[in-house]
Amino acid sequence: MITGKNHIGNQLSSQGNITFTTINPELNAENEYSFVQATEEEVNQAINLAEEAFHSYKNYSGKRKADFLRAIADEIEALGDDLINTYCSETGLPEGRAAGERGRTVFQLRSFADLVEEGSWVEACIDTGIPDRTPVAKPDLRKMNIPLGPVVVFGASNFPLAYSTAGGDTAAALASGCPVIVKSHPMHAGTGELIASAIIKAVEKTGMPKGVFSNVNSKDYAVGQQLVSHPKIKAVGFTGSIKGGRALLDIAAKREEPIPVFAEMGSVNPVVVLPKALKNRGKTIAQTFAGSITLGAGQFCTNPGLILGVAGEGLSGFIEELGSKIKGINPSCMLHPNIYEAYKKGKSEAISQNKVTVIADLDADLKINYGSQAVAVVSGKTFIENSTLHHEVFGPFSIVIQCETTNELEQIIENLEGQLTGTIISDDNEISEYPSLVAKMQNRVGRLIFNGVPTGVEVCPSMVHGGPYPASTDSRFTAVGINSIKRWVRPFSFQNWPNELLPDELKDENPLGITRLVNGQLNQF
Amino acid sequence: MITGKNHIGNQLSSQGNITFTTINPELNAENEYSFVQATEEEVNQAINLAEEAFHSYKNYSGKRKADFLRAIADEIEALGDDLINTYCSETGLPEGRAAGERGRTVFQLRSFADLVEEGSWVEACIDTGIPDRTPVAKPDLRKMNIPLGPVVVFGASNFPLAYSTAGGDTAAALASGCPVIVKSHPMHAGTGELIASAIIKAVEKTGMPKGVFSNVNSKDYAVGQQLVSHPKIKAVGFTGSIKGGRALLDIAAKREEPIPVFAEMGSVNPVVVLPKALKNRGKTIAQTFAGSITLGAGQFCTNPGLILGVAGEGLSGFIEELGSKIKGINPSCMLHPNIYEAYKKGKSEAISQNKVTVIADLDADLKINYGSQAVAVVSGKTFIENSTLHHEVFGPFSIVIQCETTNELEQIIENLEGQLTGTIISDDNEISEYPSLVAKMQNRVGRLIFNGVPTGVEVCPSMVHGGPYPASTDSRFTAVGINSIKRWVRPFSFQNWPNELLPDELKDENPLGITRLVNGQLNQF
Repeated sequence: MITGKNHIGNQLSSQGNITFTTINPELNAENEYSFVQATEEEVNQAINLAEEAFHSYKNYSGKRKADFLRAIADEIEALGDDLINTYCSETGLPEGRAAGERGRTVFQLRSFADLVEEGSWVEACIDTGIPDRTPVAKPDLRKMNIPLGPVVVFGASNFPLAYSTAGGDTAAALASGCPVIVKSHPMHAGTGELIASAIIKAVEKTGMPKGVFSNVNSKDYAVGQQLVSHPKIKAVGFTGSIKGGRALLDIAAKREEPIPVFAEMGSVNPVVVLPKALKNRGKTIAQTFAGSITLGAGQFCTNPGLILGVAGEGLSGFIEELGSKIKGINPSCMLHPNIYEAYKKGKSEAISQNKVTVIADLDADLKINYGSQAVAVVSGKTFIENSTLHHEVFGPFSIVIQCETTNELEQIIENLEGQLTGTIISDDNEISEYPSLVAKMQNRVGRLIFNGVPTGVEVCPSMVHGGPYPASTDSRFTAVGINSIKRWVRPFSFQNWPNELLPDELKDENPLGITRLVNGQLNQF
Repeated sequence: MITGKNHIGNQLSSQGNITFTTINPELNAENEYSFVQATEEEVNQAINLAEEAFHSYKNYSGKRKADFLRAIADEIEALGDDLINTYCSETGLPEGRAAGERGRTVFQLRSFADLVEEGSWVEACIDTGIPDRTPVAKPDLRKMNIPLGPVVVFGASNFPLAYSTAGGDTAAALASGCPVIVKSHPMHAGTGELIASAIIKAVEKTGMPKGVFSNVNSKDYAVGQQLVSHPKIKAVGFTGSIKGGRALLDIAAKREEPIPVFAEMGSVNPVVVLPKALKNRGKTIAQTFAGSITLGAGQFCTNPGLILGVAGEGLSGFIEELGSKIKGINPSCMLHPNIYEAYKKGKSEAISQNKVTVIADLDADLKINYGSQAVAVVSGKTFIENSTLHHEVFGPFSIVIQCETTNELEQIIENLEGQLTGTIISDDNEISEYPSLVAKMQNRVGRLIFNGVPTGVEVCPSMVHGGPYPASTDSRFTAVGINSIKRWVRPFSFQNWPNELLPDELKDENPLGITRLVNGQLNQF
């Protein structure tokens, strides 16, 4: 049941008087529930509870944390159709997507449960002492990862489940031993509250400390600013716009104690189609990318916003086919009116620039909030000279760049801002003729894709979802996959510590049987 | 031979007209050489060379980088007495310390050589594809660590070798595949130039790209600011004061593309002596800490600046003995007049506070630049109320806090700023009676020491040299040990990439035989 209240630890609370509603973009109408923004006092309560909870929760065994994470997954599934219906009414996304994203979310939670139950993720490392070493004794040193402290997670508008309330950031932080306060996304506050209620049920069923999780509503920036500024908050996770992520990064950097902000932000995800591929199968590739550009109304951070090729017959054929295929796809409803308006504005700004040719734009009599996909074409020179064309247009829009030469193409890649992904479409072994292009692309991205589309972010240990700024604020970490847990931990050493007082992960007898680096050798004994 | 010039890549260069000298603190006189500060243009040259070098150097095999690192170590050893004499004349430190630090420096270089030659440090991770998975194919994903780009390293005043020109930051960055520009410490610019010349010899002997290393002189902040602000610089390493580290962090945070700054800064390294230990062997402990406080004139970032105990007979006896032992130790020369002056000022500010009792202060007729060790005693209440007493006094000085109760002691620990280390001195199993104290200490430090002294930072994989701010700017990394290489790398994924074009680390056949996580299993095949 949706109450519109905040979850301050295990308590529902609505002390404030600022309220807001979510919007059903399909109907372009407000949904029935009204949400109460958290007050400064409620936010402080949540922070104090999180800090208290940290002192016990950080020491919970992997097994206990795993039980908690699995209980969250179970409770999310138990929400059944209520969750799916609320999700759809707050996003305009279809049921299939809702169910799929729920599946991804519970998979993530269970993956982290498996990870912490097994236990080797702490990267335990032991160097035993040599008391009689000369000139000085070698101490016994034992290291493992420990949690940073209370973490704030900002829900993402485009993934109300997988990157929001109980999404990847929350799952990784809770798995690491960090309490989490979610700043719920105002555009899917109902979905957020349902998930929060599932988490709180799991907290109660598995006996977790109250305050290990809170969920606060807000329609304006004050709540987020208060959270990120508070001395008891030790890290921040965010998925969203460059403007939003940078604002949080700047607040965190100005604190007396600066804290890490892991923000996954904008990306245009460049795609290079090599000449032979264009010539031999340009039309098939065009068809594939028409699908990738419009998937989910283009509302993915890995949406291909830039397609580059060297001008010629092959590229012209590709462009023609891409335009025609794009026009043939049914537009989809966008997440909410603000995103729809931003998309319209961004697209119109891009296509109204000088020397931009529009080859497809469905700006006809579409339903309101439906994103009309479009593709524009520019020359390499035009792109280089006009930085407006470099901005991400969040939605089903892509720019094809007709480069005069491979050199020009490389120059464009080399000077791009940091990206989540880069894609190279190659025929047979054609790619091996372009080592310098590949090297330049690698330097600008977090993930390099061969003959595929950037949309689709597989949840697995080898995934990197992140990249040079502004793809993310710290390219040294990924936001997806089990290694994303490393964002929320720090290494910690015990020196000459009594064996019986060490955490199990570091005891001589290795009671957990985890993989450890002992005197330089990996083993499980 | 010392020329006073900058190493811009492999070239000696001295375009500027700002010059400075180093000082022999034992003689309180200028050394003979004059150093030329790098000009803006020279700094830009070094940066451009580093960026060019990066494009080839990042792809060099572990074997080639290992040869380079070992050649640096060999060339440093080949400097022989020239290095030791210059070191001593620029620091006032004794020959034994110079030789010891040189040993540590070449050990670090060779450890990183071994690490990258073996190769598993890249944390290779492979998830093979499942093309026929439904509803969508599972892609083949392969991840490894790759270098960030050109790194700037600021030499530390208190470790002219091990934390400076070819110290831990430089060794780790070069090992990772990042070119390095060192901003030489002005107080040991001669030592820095000798080491730089050794590195350049190694560059030439092993055929490394020019620009993989540069060394620039400066006496003011402009050079450092220019380096950290430059868009081609991708990360920064620093060891020094909180003021200096924070200034660099702030510059980096304000860049259009913010970059990571790993600064290892101040610490008072709290030591708690538990009651039974005080009672049973307070005098022995006092003797040990008199040595630790005065070691190297207290010029270690892990120097014990704060000793806490609960008031009583035991603590009084400890204080008396500590005072007497401290007085009996011969003072040492400090690194340079600025540090000497800062120490005198910091110490006199601390001991002139209200309700501070000085139990030892050798401020008699000492030689100039000799740090006169001192110990002061305050009550817990006085310490809590007076934040001036919380500041690090860099040098042979420590404050003993007489707490009224264990609760008060815990309260002080809980509210300390972040620290590199915390130490607990316990008799037998006494420590097991203080779980809450241990937990609070753990929350504030990077390394917890049992019955030992914080001075002495063992170089091994289990070492954490870092901690919550302001001990370091990013507690998620260590500055010492092979894992310090992680500061300079980012994870990178290849998706469906052709096997023959993958780096060796990720090829099916694992030609390097490194340990990899393949479909969730660690193996070497």
